[in-house]
Amino acid sequence: MAHIDLHNDLPGIRGLMAYSPETAKPLNELVEVLLRDENNTLSRGERELIGAYVSYLNDCFFCQNVHGALAGYYLHCDIPQIDAIKNDFHSSALSDKMKALLSIAFSVQKSGRHVTKEQVEFAKSSGASDKEIHDTVLIAAAFCMYNRYVDGLSTWAPEDRQFYVSRAPQRAAEGYVDFDLYK
Amino acid sequence: MAHIDLHNDLPGIRGLMAYSPETAKPLNELVEVLLRDENNTLSRGERELIGAYVSYLNDCFFCQNVHGALAGYYLHCDIPQIDAIKNDFHSSALSDKMKALLSIAFSVQKSGRHVTKEQVEFAKSSGASDKEIHDTVLIAAAFCMYNRYVDGLSTWAPEDRQFYVSRAPQRAAEGYVDFDLYK
Repeated sequence: MAHIDLHNDLPGIRGLMAYSPETAKPLNELVEVLLRDENNTLSRGERELIGAYVSYLNDCFFCQNVHGALAGYYLHCDIPQIDAIKNDFHSSALSDKMKALLSIAFSVQKSGRHVTKEQVEFAKSSGASDKEIHDTVLIAAAFCMYNRYVDGLSTWAPEDRQFYVSRAPQRAAEGYVDFDLYK
Repeated sequence: MAHIDLHNDLPGIRGLMAYSPETAKPLNELVEVLLRDENNTLSRGERELIGAYVSYLNDCFFCQNVHGALAGYYLHCDIPQIDAIKNDFHSSALSDKMKALLSIAFSVQKSGRHVTKEQVEFAKSSGASDKEIHDTVLIAAAFCMYNRYVDGLSTWAPEDRQFYVSRAPQRAAEGYVDFDLYK
């Protein structure tokens, strides 16, 4: 049960957004531009993967499943494959650039101060652009917010992980802005 | 020097926002509604104080000084008084309600999962409303994002703390939305 009365029974951040639509608006706009904007050389799947990975590091069940399922949808991976990347991306078949960016996201999850010049130089030498590094840092930072919002108010989350996989195509089609919070 | 070329020499998050206006828009709208919306029983000073405190816990020099100065401006405190609250709010003259809310913010800074039912119950028994608890959690979570964004990209910050105090009245008058990022 959530720490406060949300006046709805929606799970995770959706219950919070229905409770507080005035903050939901910029929160949704931020995730829409970060994860879905088409003017980006990181694919939607790669950006969802960064969000899922940071949510995993923050132990946020709802967010890591929502965004892990979306990463899987875009990247044509199933739950065990996404889990394997979250558990040990170094051993995955991801590109060196993606591994370098996930390494930066790993540091951001701890603190902005944990990101080193060496990590950034390695990402650049692996082909990452300044914008890709910028977006990785902000996506990781943003999920440190979303995860804390979801768990800090003790929202509930469906336990069946297949629930999130089933919903991913709809979310991929609709995006994060202007979807009906109440359905 | 920042980890990436921002094409400007603005400090802290202002340099990042000039570099990435498409993400600056929702980031500014979020902080505007969280810290300044007038439909709120927490004063602007109290909300800035929560942001400054979390920025202090995250060791983000730029954010803790910007928002510490704004808290001081609204609450009629100088730098040593704000520092004293950040260092040990339990011993301050703040209300029991504000102390309970700062205690929740302290937990959110670690992880959403650190917020306990007992902390929330204590806040409620000290007079905090559901919305005040919601806003405290989201303000604390949001500063965990802003702080990581600012430090994760290694932005620079003016060292003179008086700089932030001097600018606080202007920021208080202008707010966070639609101000000229380039001045």
